[in-house]
Amino acid sequence: MAEVEAIARLANQLSKLPGVGRKTAQRLAYHIVGMREDQVRELAVAIFEGKKKVHLCPVCGNYTDGEKCPICADGSRRRDIVCVVRDPRDVNAFERMRDYNGLYHVLHGVISPMDGVGPDDIRIRELMSRLAEGEIQEVVLATNPDVEGEATAAYIARLIKPMGVKVTRIAHGVPVGGELEYTDEVTLARAFEGRREF
Amino acid sequence: MAEVEAIARLANQLSKLPGVGRKTAQRLAYHIVGMREDQVRELAVAIFEGKKKVHLCPVCGNYTDGEKCPICADGSRRRDIVCVVRDPRDVNAFERMRDYNGLYHVLHGVISPMDGVGPDDIRIRELMSRLAEGEIQEVVLATNPDVEGEATAAYIARLIKPMGVKVTRIAHGVPVGGELEYTDEVTLARAFEGRREF
Repeated sequence: MAEVEAIARLANQLSKLPGVGRKTAQRLAYHIVGMREDQVRELAVAIFEGKKKVHLCPVCGNYTDGEKCPICADGSRRRDIVCVVRDPRDVNAFERMRDYNGLYHVLHGVISPMDGVGPDDIRIRELMSRLAEGEIQEVVLATNPDVEGEATAAYIARLIKPMGVKVTRIAHGVPVGGELEYTDEVTLARAFEGRREF
Repeated sequence: MAEVEAIARLANQLSKLPGVGRKTAQRLAYHIVGMREDQVRELAVAIFEGKKKVHLCPVCGNYTDGEKCPICADGSRRRDIVCVVRDPRDVNAFERMRDYNGLYHVLHGVISPMDGVGPDDIRIRELMSRLAEGEIQEVVLATNPDVEGEATAAYIARLIKPMGVKVTRIAHGVPVGGELEYTDEVTLARAFEGRREF
């Protein structure tokens, strides 16, 4: 088959994105080649700049293009409660619910011995440092309700308990085995309200 | 909601791609921001270079990154038969079927008065110039089997008939109302075999 190499290369790059199969990648590649050059430049620049400008917030580990993330920098938010999540997309999911006014801590992963991810590979140490400052009164463990998420929550709870900080877990309003990111706002809000002492 | 602007801008650009909704775009944006910088650079470069290197083949209008497209440049292909399609993705679909060994002509659109697209807005003039050279004995009209595709085929057939060139239309093995691009190889092959004089 006579393939145009530049298009094949583009399709190959696109097929590495999550949820983009071989056919979708090819369709997107043809679409991009057919776009106006200024539109394509805008897209390529948004991708490259997006990556270059965004880094982790030094406080919570959320993505930010500023010094601190918009949430840590927001003086109107409660500083005595921290919601611990697996990744920045989960922060986004909680923010969509609009009910929560505290801070976050992003682990960037969960403990998973099968994948060779141990407690030291995710941002647990950073969480302990934040707790050591003494301002935080409650830690809400909001990892996904799957095996690794539960194990990670249990591990962190065991670490924190001796410090006398209240540790809660979001309620199983989130469907077990589901993904936080795709949970609707109402379910998430209910799960948050129903949180119980770990 | 506290959004990181660089991510929001990237998601906005991605949501302009076909089949990418607001949620998918956001998911992709977070994924890209979480990728290694060299991977992101590769992706951005593939997009930009893909667009910059690819242009229309001066003979058939297919996409190419060379002088002529790989099909027109291939000396082993029959030059007496031309398959007329709407866009380069359709060339791809026919090439996947592997049965066709002739040339193509890409119209880059179909006649659609509702969208203000007339016969002069698609590459019909270029097709007539190719026919005037006298080498082509058969024109297979392979536009989509929908209203605009049929109307375009009928229009081109009327133009060509007086020139004494055989004009055929692919059989309706392709489901009516369907898209050529998504048709499987076998159905496409059958449609091609069953072509009849226009």
